[in-house]
Amino acid sequence: MKVVVLVGGVGGARFLLGVKAALGMPATGSAPSPHQVTALVNTGDDVWMHGLRICPDLDTCMYTLGGGIDTERGWGRAGESWTVKDELAAYGADPTWFGLGDRDIATHLVRSRMLRAGFPLSAVTEALCDRWQPGVTLLPASDDRVETHVAVDDPETGERRAIHFQEWWVRHRAGLPAHAIVAVGAEEAKPAPGVVEAIADADVVLLAPSNPVVSVGTVLAVPGIRAALREGRAPVIGISPIIDGRPLRGMADACLTAIGVETTAEAVGRHYGSRAEPGDGLLDGWLVHTGDTADVPGVKVVSAPMLMSDVDATSAMVAEAFSLAGVTP
Amino acid sequence: MKVVVLVGGVGGARFLLGVKAALGMPATGSAPSPHQVTALVNTGDDVWMHGLRICPDLDTCMYTLGGGIDTERGWGRAGESWTVKDELAAYGADPTWFGLGDRDIATHLVRSRMLRAGFPLSAVTEALCDRWQPGVTLLPASDDRVETHVAVDDPETGERRAIHFQEWWVRHRAGLPAHAIVAVGAEEAKPAPGVVEAIADADVVLLAPSNPVVSVGTVLAVPGIRAALREGRAPVIGISPIIDGRPLRGMADACLTAIGVETTAEAVGRHYGSRAEPGDGLLDGWLVHTGDTADVPGVKVVSAPMLMSDVDATSAMVAEAFSLAGVTP
Repeated sequence: MKVVVLVGGVGGARFLLGVKAALGMPATGSAPSPHQVTALVNTGDDVWMHGLRICPDLDTCMYTLGGGIDTERGWGRAGESWTVKDELAAYGADPTWFGLGDRDIATHLVRSRMLRAGFPLSAVTEALCDRWQPGVTLLPASDDRVETHVAVDDPETGERRAIHFQEWWVRHRAGLPAHAIVAVGAEEAKPAPGVVEAIADADVVLLAPSNPVVSVGTVLAVPGIRAALREGRAPVIGISPIIDGRPLRGMADACLTAIGVETTAEAVGRHYGSRAEPGDGLLDGWLVHTGDTADVPGVKVVSAPMLMSDVDATSAMVAEAFSLAGVTP
Repeated sequence: MKVVVLVGGVGGARFLLGVKAALGMPATGSAPSPHQVTALVNTGDDVWMHGLRICPDLDTCMYTLGGGIDTERGWGRAGESWTVKDELAAYGADPTWFGLGDRDIATHLVRSRMLRAGFPLSAVTEALCDRWQPGVTLLPASDDRVETHVAVDDPETGERRAIHFQEWWVRHRAGLPAHAIVAVGAEEAKPAPGVVEAIADADVVLLAPSNPVVSVGTVLAVPGIRAALREGRAPVIGISPIIDGRPLRGMADACLTAIGVETTAEAVGRHYGSRAEPGDGLLDGWLVHTGDTADVPGVKVVSAPMLMSDVDATSAMVAEAFSLAGVTP
């Protein structure tokens, strides 16, 4: 079976563990399998820092599926050290608020060097995955630079200005009200090689319970991806990242508020919209957590446990999604 | 007193400690002083690796004089760790034979970022020295790319090809016969801002007992520096890096052989040549180790202990050089 999953970082990576488990694949690493999983990964969090290209969501997926993740933190490498970060701070090199670990830096060095040599991000990701063997094809949504920026009022000057998503999310912990969230560069971006093909070829497409605005939303902002999903033969099943009116993890509510969407499973389902309706809706099915309800016109809504408490629970969620899509591995 | 010193890496840095001590300055760090020391530092060892611009001699001088050096090794940072290097090797990223420490990498990140932003190496060096306060003005010989390359017979194919000095020196430990040593880029290079001015303004110029071919020689390869030395008002005193027919440290003999100069104090003195003679000679005085002799026409030769066994011994060497130059701090 061919499964395509739209994902962000930590939540997306954990969801992919469940997808692999539901397909009988080892959670981490690769092994021969009749199934193929392709993850379309958000690049909106990507950023140049200290001359290094950092792709948090691609790396989180790669480390998680390759067995190198710090499982407690959910991001970065297990057994990480912070020598370079401390030294950069000793030089007064900005920014100092981003967690750049020593092990992680090697990934960024390899990537930055390849990007500067002219390789597209998709090829760089493939090269990095040679080491990690995630068992899933990780494709950046686009090889073009698509970065999420957030319009905020500067806490010092009061002036409205756009800051990189990472500055808003990590430095300010999404605490500055977001007046707008923009995927800079998305309009001119093209899907990375293989993205549209994977969608066209898929038996089922899943929207991971990642941030619907700055993770899945940024993947969908790349022209051509939404159309491919609407026109593809595969059913599209979304998994609600909102449980009992709260985000599954992170600060998705701040993002939803910025785009005028309520933090409820129903509102997010309606935001994704129905594929059966005219317009640009995507969903055939919408999975919400037990106890949540959602009325999304033109979309079949099913409720089941949606907490990714461990790989088994996540695998069960994915099995529900397959069932809702009418596909069997 | 204004002192200009032409230096390479480890030996040059240790020599500068002695210069500072001879002038009553603290060996490491900066403090108010009536004296000014300007080091013209070799850039021939500089290299891009893993997308980072590495300037071994500038860094060795900066760390040594700033109190951050690994004193045992003579290069790199004290308390260094090697996490990034190990991770790069896990990615199969070449080269793996260069000692790139975690603490050190922060320096290279700051430098590479500034260089890519358009700052010249001299400005970058000044910015890095803001942290280290070496107490000496460290000037790269040139802001232009001047890199030492070595013509060797490839050990696998037998074909003659040019490799970067670092590959020859560090990877092959100067074990491949060098057919030629070339300062690539030197012909089009200009002295960095302040270099010619420092020479013109100097009371005395010292050639550190660094490698006369690939350290001092590469500084001298930058057009304009040799002429400034010959035309300047300051006496030029060289300190022999050859003691009893052997290099003070490193593998300078391999370099001397490549350019057809014997590994003796006399031959190196003659290689530098006399400023009083027509041509391009540089020396007014030549200091050789006790027991060594040298007949260098037009140059006053004095022998004294020339082993940089500690800062006091090095300071005494520098005092000999001042005395030979007829200057008094």
